[in-house]
Amino acid sequence: MRVGQRSDAKQKMVQAARQLIRERGYGATAFSDVLALSGAPRGSVYFHFPGGKAQLGMEAAEAHAHEQVEIIDRAAGEASSAAQLIERYVDLGREGMVAGDYGRGCGVAPLVTEGAAQESAELSETSRRAFSEMTDRLVFHFVAFGVDRAAARVLADAVIAGVEGAMITSRALRSPAPYDSVRAVLVSHAAIVSPKTASRTRS
Amino acid sequence: MRVGQRSDAKQKMVQAARQLIRERGYGATAFSDVLALSGAPRGSVYFHFPGGKAQLGMEAAEAHAHEQVEIIDRAAGEASSAAQLIERYVDLGREGMVAGDYGRGCGVAPLVTEGAAQESAELSETSRRAFSEMTDRLVFHFVAFGVDRAAARVLADAVIAGVEGAMITSRALRSPAPYDSVRAVLVSHAAIVSPKTASRTRS
Repeated sequence: MRVGQRSDAKQKMVQAARQLIRERGYGATAFSDVLALSGAPRGSVYFHFPGGKAQLGMEAAEAHAHEQVEIIDRAAGEASSAAQLIERYVDLGREGMVAGDYGRGCGVAPLVTEGAAQESAELSETSRRAFSEMTDRLVFHFVAFGVDRAAARVLADAVIAGVEGAMITSRALRSPAPYDSVRAVLVSHAAIVSPKTASRTRS
Repeated sequence: MRVGQRSDAKQKMVQAARQLIRERGYGATAFSDVLALSGAPRGSVYFHFPGGKAQLGMEAAEAHAHEQVEIIDRAAGEASSAAQLIERYVDLGREGMVAGDYGRGCGVAPLVTEGAAQESAELSETSRRAFSEMTDRLVFHFVAFGVDRAAARVLADAVIAGVEGAMITSRALRSPAPYDSVRAVLVSHAAIVSPKTASRTRS
């Protein structure tokens, strides 16, 4: 999705960086790889990313978080309960993992696991905000589905952690089973904290 | 813990590698850093790790998995139900995260998120086996606590994914809250799949 006044070249570079970070992590994603994948001219690095590699990583992480928020909104639009939202969101992650042949993970996690977020205040703030945005969006929808705010926060934290973890173990095991297990546990908890009047019109 | 006939120097290097991989990931962990941290002589690289960096990563991941299995066994020994085992295991992870000032993650996940496991059949097999060993150990104890085997598998998958994810989001947020949320959701599911006669002698 286009954001504001971003040029096509910049947008393509951010998406290429996001793809590479998801495949091989942050440290191994070089500007030269991003240029090769996006087809952007070399001069665009200095023009679009005066903040260098850290800026590229930050914008890629932000793009990833924004896409996840959109996916959460879409899943919520098709759901009529917190449990259904979780089912759809986890299933979309599962489908993406299988479709990508277990080759792509999160676009934010590598900033954290590679310590980049600890060495740069900007990357630290970006990764914190990325996970907060996803979690807050889930809380918003869970509350709209009638879940108590405190319980919605716990559930949302657990959804994001569960999906983040499933991305890792599913890749390692080359199996979608972790997604199914995470989904089952989250849905059973969602049912407990959901209002008893919540209807489930979809299976 | 000493494993078999490993020399002290080798063991120190493996532990140093594990620490650095947990802090900064696999790619950024160079032999020179491992030597500096462990105090091992340069010649020991070629002597102890003829397989190079990949062997170092494999042995560090194996050491991490073995330690996690030991922690699971200890937690199980102090628990009298699947829910209590989960409470103790998640709390130990939470304590380690806070004690390490949100600076250390998993010793296996970076092999996966940095794509190393996809480029090396040996690293792929090592990361698969590491997560399988932790999960299988949880399944073993859950079954011993009376949980049906299929339900124990789902619960164990969700525990490992939840803890892996909490390690990432907790680090990013610099907050232990994700551990508490993951714990609450897992424990409520554990109660559902546990035999109704299970006593809970500890709070």
